[in-house]
Amino acid sequence: MNINKKISNDLKLVEKLIKKDISKEKTISGLYKYIFKSNGKKIRARLNLIASSKNLNKNRIKLASVIELLHTATLIHDDVVDDSAVRRGTKSVNKLWTNSHGVLIGDYIYSKAFMYMVDIGNKKILEELAIATNDISQGELIQLDAIRNLNITLQKLKKISYYKTGRLFEAAAKTGAINSNENQAFIFNISECAKYLGILFQIKDDLLDYSDNKKIGKPVFQDIKEGKVTYPFFYAYQKANGKEKKILKELLYSSKKIRRKDLELIESLSGIKKTEQLANHYHKKTIECAKKIKNLDIREEMIELSNNALNREK
Amino acid sequence: MNINKKISNDLKLVEKLIKKDISKEKTISGLYKYIFKSNGKKIRARLNLIASSKNLNKNRIKLASVIELLHTATLIHDDVVDDSAVRRGTKSVNKLWTNSHGVLIGDYIYSKAFMYMVDIGNKKILEELAIATNDISQGELIQLDAIRNLNITLQKLKKISYYKTGRLFEAAAKTGAINSNENQAFIFNISECAKYLGILFQIKDDLLDYSDNKKIGKPVFQDIKEGKVTYPFFYAYQKANGKEKKILKELLYSSKKIRRKDLELIESLSGIKKTEQLANHYHKKTIECAKKIKNLDIREEMIELSNNALNREK
Repeated sequence: MNINKKISNDLKLVEKLIKKDISKEKTISGLYKYIFKSNGKKIRARLNLIASSKNLNKNRIKLASVIELLHTATLIHDDVVDDSAVRRGTKSVNKLWTNSHGVLIGDYIYSKAFMYMVDIGNKKILEELAIATNDISQGELIQLDAIRNLNITLQKLKKISYYKTGRLFEAAAKTGAINSNENQAFIFNISECAKYLGILFQIKDDLLDYSDNKKIGKPVFQDIKEGKVTYPFFYAYQKANGKEKKILKELLYSSKKIRRKDLELIESLSGIKKTEQLANHYHKKTIECAKKIKNLDIREEMIELSNNALNREK
Repeated sequence: MNINKKISNDLKLVEKLIKKDISKEKTISGLYKYIFKSNGKKIRARLNLIASSKNLNKNRIKLASVIELLHTATLIHDDVVDDSAVRRGTKSVNKLWTNSHGVLIGDYIYSKAFMYMVDIGNKKILEELAIATNDISQGELIQLDAIRNLNITLQKLKKISYYKTGRLFEAAAKTGAINSNENQAFIFNISECAKYLGILFQIKDDLLDYSDNKKIGKPVFQDIKEGKVTYPFFYAYQKANGKEKKILKELLYSSKKIRRKDLELIESLSGIKKTEQLANHYHKKTIECAKKIKNLDIREEMIELSNNALNREK
């Protein structure tokens, strides 16, 4: 069986393991089932499985489930934070139930992930995932500073992309490799590669929010509506003259509907183009790291993920 | 130095260790400092230190800090869930900042606790605290079912008190004892004792919410205002006739200000008296377990905590 097929099969086992865990309490099982009914892309769990695919280990599926649980918990808390109504094409927990349910089922899933991690019982894996979880919350907190903040720096935006998204990609690859008892060079290369892939993924997410295609399956222009400064807005604002700055500032503060001409303004100020260049930059970094991975199957998988991340339209 | 003095000193070291950890990110350090500026009662950290006071171990202070961090994280998420404006006599994070800040700094503190736990590196301690954290979130989720729920059972209310409060008391004592390499009998007795103490603590909390004294330092009649059925309301409703049931139901649904005569109705229907009896029942259970603890210093500490919990007026 080729590696790609093997990993697709393993991802089904991850889903199965996660869904097996059903609480006797109706409210909890109802929430839990709803959350894991819609299957996400599972790119983080996939990364983890790729990194642990050379030397199979009994905890392989459980570890990938931990990664998926951690990611899901952050998504649910994110939806509360952003007051999002939609997640994975269906209503978010906070909308279908309440914010309170979102906060608490997020905590439930977080702690479930920690229970599985403790079961696996590898200190290095525990360390990496505890720190990564803390870093993710830091990324989200720093992002709150980016709301209606016209003075945010590119450095800070990059830190947000890394902490909020790159960090779990990195930890997914790193812990997978640790779980497979890989050598230091492999652990380092695949972690770096996954980190840049995560940052690329986030930059592309920011870009897609400024696209007006219908394929994304979620509302667009959400970031600016929430007053969140991301790359396209940042670059456009950098280049804007006084009058344009005023228009952009109004968009950020008004939470009104973004119109075609607002997008055109951001485009004309190179907001989209410069973000695409940044995405290309991280794509290149990802490929460079991938090429240092000696195992050709794994190298190919990483390159494919990177190309998909760059070219994805949803 | 007697044990009581020793533990008071150790609690100061716990505070110091927690406060030492300051992020370079202003928003995070601002939130963190604010949260740990006001010192709570630290009864859970105290329990942990009592349980680990016979055989001192290098991780003793760190473990008590983990317990305090976990508790603080649950409080912050609780305040978001209950939309509380006040915590420890000052404004809650969700009021002074936003709900989003509350959710995320709660996650930050949770994961910080896991980082410390992993440092300690004792698998049994990790297991107990991962499961306890999951149980706490279950208790909170089940409690959401108690909102405006006139069909809630006494059994369910007891489960809420145990999961939401008793569980961390139990885990605090248990992990303290494990950290001190205590024998199984001691671990069992002090855990049971702490568990009942926690349930007693919660029952007393529910009672204090129905008292009209000014000492509590937080608003009273919050539970009924939030539509939350707790013991005093539950017992009163059980005994009420049709007309009284209607009045009680209105109180639960209207979120209007509770007046003197509403409290008198609940009192006349034995809501307060029966809750006090339940508190006495758990106080008795706590004392019974405490008497099984052979170390006289620790036994005395547990009995004192139990008496204080029963008699506290805030």
